[in-house]
Amino acid sequence: MQEFIRIPFDTLVARLSAILEANGCAPWVAQVIGLNCASAQRDGAHSHGVFRMKGYVSTLNAGGWVDGRAEPLLEDVAPGFLRVDGMNGFTVCALARAREAALAKVKANGCAVLAIRNSHHLGALSLDVEPFADEGLIALSFINSMASVVPHGGRKAALGTNPIAFATPRRDARPLVFDMATSVMAHGDVQLAAREGRTLDKGVGVDRDGNPTDDPRAIVDGGALMAFGGHKGAALALMVEVMCGALVGGKFSREVDLKQHPGAHTPHTGQSFILIDPQAGRGTLPPFVDRVEDLMGYLIDAGQTRLPGDRRHEARDDSMKNGVPVSAELMAMLEEMERG
Amino acid sequence: MQEFIRIPFDTLVARLSAILEANGCAPWVAQVIGLNCASAQRDGAHSHGVFRMKGYVSTLNAGGWVDGRAEPLLEDVAPGFLRVDGMNGFTVCALARAREAALAKVKANGCAVLAIRNSHHLGALSLDVEPFADEGLIALSFINSMASVVPHGGRKAALGTNPIAFATPRRDARPLVFDMATSVMAHGDVQLAAREGRTLDKGVGVDRDGNPTDDPRAIVDGGALMAFGGHKGAALALMVEVMCGALVGGKFSREVDLKQHPGAHTPHTGQSFILIDPQAGRGTLPPFVDRVEDLMGYLIDAGQTRLPGDRRHEARDDSMKNGVPVSAELMAMLEEMERG
Repeated sequence: MQEFIRIPFDTLVARLSAILEANGCAPWVAQVIGLNCASAQRDGAHSHGVFRMKGYVSTLNAGGWVDGRAEPLLEDVAPGFLRVDGMNGFTVCALARAREAALAKVKANGCAVLAIRNSHHLGALSLDVEPFADEGLIALSFINSMASVVPHGGRKAALGTNPIAFATPRRDARPLVFDMATSVMAHGDVQLAAREGRTLDKGVGVDRDGNPTDDPRAIVDGGALMAFGGHKGAALALMVEVMCGALVGGKFSREVDLKQHPGAHTPHTGQSFILIDPQAGRGTLPPFVDRVEDLMGYLIDAGQTRLPGDRRHEARDDSMKNGVPVSAELMAMLEEMERG
Repeated sequence: MQEFIRIPFDTLVARLSAILEANGCAPWVAQVIGLNCASAQRDGAHSHGVFRMKGYVSTLNAGGWVDGRAEPLLEDVAPGFLRVDGMNGFTVCALARAREAALAKVKANGCAVLAIRNSHHLGALSLDVEPFADEGLIALSFINSMASVVPHGGRKAALGTNPIAFATPRRDARPLVFDMATSVMAHGDVQLAAREGRTLDKGVGVDRDGNPTDDPRAIVDGGALMAFGGHKGAALALMVEVMCGALVGGKFSREVDLKQHPGAHTPHTGQSFILIDPQAGRGTLPPFVDRVEDLMGYLIDAGQTRLPGDRRHEARDDSMKNGVPVSAELMAMLEEMERG
């Protein structure tokens, strides 16, 4: 049993932001990332929560791999298409700066693409899409990462863990949100398993020689993950590369080369969003959110007891009421970072 | 070994169209469906090829379940959003009528949503997206169907097999296209297996009592399929319901009720498309298709020998050169239909 310490959410945001600022981030950048990282911890997405702070700090000190003071550049390229050059900063910061313009586009056009390149993502993708659903929009997002997944029929890594996230508004409930790595496991979860000395299921990955392994350390140390669901998951991972590397004009997972930057952990890639206004021109059709509730009813009737995102919403409620749980080990890490 | 007869593609289209017209389709409808069905057969997508003709004919004679003479109604609801009421006709016909308007929207706006409701789909989804990639566009499409897939943690069917298709242009090659049921198998493939008396892998489905089975007949006869890849595939199937039933304003898979229409086989649901112009405002970024080729190079370098869609392109080349292969059994079925 791990020991957890409970911290008020705002306190956690402030502490994380201060550490990020002390490590070279501009104040607004530190605030955006601190909020993002604390929110993942709040939602129980531990592989993208406080655990990631070591990666952020190490990356910020990796000889210019990422620019913690970057000012993203927005390019309004078409009525339904917004491009953003992250200027080698963090992707969540580019998203924060692009959010209002993207919302205006989707509301005027019925749909919009937001294509972010030249940026670094280390957060939970669910947090990127959920706020759009809070605005009544459907949001789909894709991120590529670093070569760590074997393509279909291949023998070594060429694809990232390449998550896909989806969010839709509901009527009387918080948005339905899912966020899935297209690998069998998220790389963050493999890293956690390696730290905790756990073994994995068969079929999760291969070692550096391409042999199947259940040892997370062998996967992290030069091995690679498999896509989920065989050739289907591999095709989705490939789609994410097209939607990020090619569409946004950024790097493919295979092109991320950290070798000259010891300590760097962030993929320098891209992220794309597809935003849709489901109320566009509905006329006499029933309201979108009413129909989503009908669907939820069918799922529950068929015996589904937990909907995607339920676990996150429950963890969030508990965190906001009782404080965000942070393990004693991670708290010690934070305190060490605060000492500098 | 099954015996195959080779028929010139145009002859097959003409024969299928004539059968459809003799069963009540308007000439243009018969032409669109005949072309679609023959194209699936040409591409080796046999579960959506000539095999489906029995379902089309039976459905056309099922007491008004589908209208083979429907004229789809286009509604231009926003600069990037086109709604289509299929008027209870076939979805591929609604798509054929909406194609030019959808292309104009995506070229002007950078992206567009095409939302088709009140229509019936029985074709191969790959054929719906590939022509958009031929125009230089990225296309994503979703279709819901009939309740035949168990939701995550549930005990009976509530979701359709709900395929997802994706197409992207390439530089010097035909588009990269994939088309995947979010169920472990496509229902058409289960039907084929049932006809051929084959057994299936474990984990494909459950019988009418919710027990796991490897008998395709037990799945077809009141049982249900599982989603591919566990909770991830189930979440994708749920997303397809939102993107079709709720977004387009059509029926959810669970709402399709064929009971009053003996012989009806088509899901009366919806289809959505997301179309994106990857060249929108690229400025000094490298051309999109050049980057797609870079990605293909990485996949091949990692040992992937066949890219999504390769098998279909090879089957198509063979069919166009040597005639479309149709099994003797299906040919006998066609001849019986032609006798009326």
